[in-house]
Amino acid sequence: MAPQKVKSLTENQLLSKVQRVFSARGKQRLRWKLDDDVALFSPSAGKDLILTCDWFLEGSHFLRRKHAADSVGWKCLARAVSDIAATGGSPKCFLLSLALPPSAAGQWLDQFLSGLRRASKELHCSLAGGDTTRRREILISVTVIGEVASGRAIRRDGAHPGDHLFVTGRLGEAELGLRMLRTDRGAARAKNASLRKHLYPEPRLQIGEWLAKNRLASALMDLSDGLSSDLPRLCSASGVGARVDANRLPVTSLVERRKAVHLALHGGDDYELLFTVRKDKATRIPSAFHGIAITRIGEITAGKKILVHDGNGTRELNAEGWDPFRVSRPLRSEIPQAR
Amino acid sequence: MAPQKVKSLTENQLLSKVQRVFSARGKQRLRWKLDDDVALFSPSAGKDLILTCDWFLEGSHFLRRKHAADSVGWKCLARAVSDIAATGGSPKCFLLSLALPPSAAGQWLDQFLSGLRRASKELHCSLAGGDTTRRREILISVTVIGEVASGRAIRRDGAHPGDHLFVTGRLGEAELGLRMLRTDRGAARAKNASLRKHLYPEPRLQIGEWLAKNRLASALMDLSDGLSSDLPRLCSASGVGARVDANRLPVTSLVERRKAVHLALHGGDDYELLFTVRKDKATRIPSAFHGIAITRIGEITAGKKILVHDGNGTRELNAEGWDPFRVSRPLRSEIPQAR
Repeated sequence: MAPQKVKSLTENQLLSKVQRVFSARGKQRLRWKLDDDVALFSPSAGKDLILTCDWFLEGSHFLRRKHAADSVGWKCLARAVSDIAATGGSPKCFLLSLALPPSAAGQWLDQFLSGLRRASKELHCSLAGGDTTRRREILISVTVIGEVASGRAIRRDGAHPGDHLFVTGRLGEAELGLRMLRTDRGAARAKNASLRKHLYPEPRLQIGEWLAKNRLASALMDLSDGLSSDLPRLCSASGVGARVDANRLPVTSLVERRKAVHLALHGGDDYELLFTVRKDKATRIPSAFHGIAITRIGEITAGKKILVHDGNGTRELNAEGWDPFRVSRPLRSEIPQAR
Repeated sequence: MAPQKVKSLTENQLLSKVQRVFSARGKQRLRWKLDDDVALFSPSAGKDLILTCDWFLEGSHFLRRKHAADSVGWKCLARAVSDIAATGGSPKCFLLSLALPPSAAGQWLDQFLSGLRRASKELHCSLAGGDTTRRREILISVTVIGEVASGRAIRRDGAHPGDHLFVTGRLGEAELGLRMLRTDRGAARAKNASLRKHLYPEPRLQIGEWLAKNRLASALMDLSDGLSSDLPRLCSASGVGARVDANRLPVTSLVERRKAVHLALHGGDDYELLFTVRKDKATRIPSAFHGIAITRIGEITAGKKILVHDGNGTRELNAEGWDPFRVSRPLRSEIPQAR
């Protein structure tokens, strides 16, 4: 796109561009056009709506020179959809709030929309509307609307002492991907499972829906900030503690085990599911579902502490995961924290 | 709040603070707590949902040293709710995406939440959830979910040649308020109608709902960017033109008429309603509704042009309102545009 064209891009033109890219996508229940200020949605009978929103900000959550625009488009939607998976629901549509500098209104925007459209298609989540403005840095906020059968949404506060604790997939891979990206020259594209997971995470929708449909999980959430940050949230909401067996953690095999366990305990951005199952139902949880591993990593306890044990003994698990309001941790030092 | 406390504020603590302020507010249909990543909403039978989101960014939409935090809280919700009013719907709940520097996590946040809570209460729009992160500048994105009787939402594309064109309230006041604010020392508080309208706009929910219920408006939208920007959008969506009588425009009396008319044509941020009514129904529109003036300012034409006429003749109306992607206009020069 010629510079003079970028400079003269108006809000209407930007909306037209977004609309062109998404024009073929599922309009069946979204009756309004993107250039209205609102979207209209007809909820299905017998369903509850699930609402969630997520920031995705240049410099905080991604770096323009390190993360391909296409992966920014994919990930900003996928991570919000993961919150829907974490209730056992299905995504329906999303709103995109996008602030852009003129320098990103050409090729960057095209590739961003391409990644976003692919996520929208694969996750069955249509673009319903949004808001755009101009800004020095790229700012993204995504709101996703999902549905779940009335009364079937799984919360994070239903865990009981004795419940078994499970996770999907492998933990710590996305964090390892972030570390690889640091040493990568230029914008990173997926070269292995870890980088792919950091750049193109896949919300575990099928497993979440299956857990809700079969009333198998007593508590459920997704792992966005790392096990050591998220497990205490589930336990605190449920008024329980937990005991994690470090030897059972499903970790990456790309680094030595001790480092891999540390990544699995504290690394963020995995978007795997963490859930609890009553002891008498635990045998109904398979070791894999649609090709995604499901691993029992421990159990829920009556005491409030979160403990990790391995061959060397038992210790308390302290949060070292992602919290934007804590001083930045070494794991995240390459993604600079705004002051 | 002591500096060391601000520094150690975690995301969980910030959420607790938001939750405390809003704890007494309408939870009847929002069953989940704020510290879950999602909110659950049970839509009413026979209703369509209306979804809308709006940016409200420090430096683009407000200035921390000029706009009281309380007005930032009020306005970020009120302007998004105005999009619901502009369909004839009623707001139900909202999601708050908030990015804050630690320096704003004390007094600023308290006052912001106070204004937001007041808007939430007066506009009958409950806080359902949100996302928080840390950032150099204050970033706000608000998503509002509203409801409207199925099939009754009014769009902007139904205007026909011959329809009468109406606006609510007075136009250009908020722009005048912005100009006053420039010359104000320190953070501005409402001292007159114009400043009040700039700082605490009131979405015209009752008029919108009444128009929808009685099927009176053929097209409806709100005036957020100024008549000269928004009227072309209504006309373009409807495939029509319009003729505005400048002498009929409801303007502020705080400045001389010629300047007031210019403000009314091009000033943004009024959040009044702009709507069209079939000629045979036009007599059913009163001159005021619940104390808010309703004024016929012109009519819809078959030609595509937007014309303004006054005692001196007829000219084409060119957009001089707010478009963040256009080069900043003198009217807005005090609110710096990000490059």
